[in-house]
Amino acid sequence: MTEPPFELEPIGEVRTPFETSDEAPRQGLEGEEPTHGEIVLAPAFEPGLEGIEDGETVDVLWIADEADRSVLRVRDGERGVFSTRSPHRPNPICVTTCRVRAVDGRRLAVSGVDMLDGSPVVDLKAPLE
Amino acid sequence: MTEPPFELEPIGEVRTPFETSDEAPRQGLEGEEPTHGEIVLAPAFEPGLEGIEDGETVDVLWIADEADRSVLRVRDGERGVFSTRSPHRPNPICVTTCRVRAVDGRRLAVSGVDMLDGSPVVDLKAPLE
Repeated sequence: MTEPPFELEPIGEVRTPFETSDEAPRQGLEGEEPTHGEIVLAPAFEPGLEGIEDGETVDVLWIADEADRSVLRVRDGERGVFSTRSPHRPNPICVTTCRVRAVDGRRLAVSGVDMLDGSPVVDLKAPLE
Repeated sequence: MTEPPFELEPIGEVRTPFETSDEAPRQGLEGEEPTHGEIVLAPAFEPGLEGIEDGETVDVLWIADEADRSVLRVRDGERGVFSTRSPHRPNPICVTTCRVRAVDGRRLAVSGVDMLDGSPVVDLKAPLE
């Protein structure tokens, strides 16, 4: 991990109702109706979930694996991509805050999903206090 | 970008006063005194900064390139790493919210840094509104 490019290995994936980007909301927890989904970790990473409790929020880092990584300007060229949260960006790591509804082994039922179904998850973090 | 492992190419680096992890604060903007630093992008990525204004906050995604990626439990094994913000984790991508003090070409003067000096930056995002 000391020299670029840095390799990310998914820790799991997220299951959501959204098959296309038109269906996915901008940010799941901000919408009028909570969106429900499930984060499923690979078995090796289950010990990392210890201490995550129902009702807490968790920051989900995931890869927009269909992103166009050549994009630097958006909105007809008026805005630089780094002043937005567009998934199309040089390193398409997205951050979504979800609320944990239940923990069952290596599965987290969550609300607030805005990812496409099957998106690779690379990290989960406690939110900043 | 469609198959793992996913490769991240740094867009730049961050310059901070912190040479060791003991010196770095937990989260820069939360501390009593603001910490000052500079994000310097590679020339190719400068167009992506268009629209970032002084005084705004920006989420900085950076790599803890000295992290131990084998860590799944922390605090003497009591907590799973995914319920914390420890930099030692399988995919050591860290997220720090900084405040922009000035933009000068491909350089952003910022406060709120908590990174080690020279850490690779992989993304900048507008904060969630």
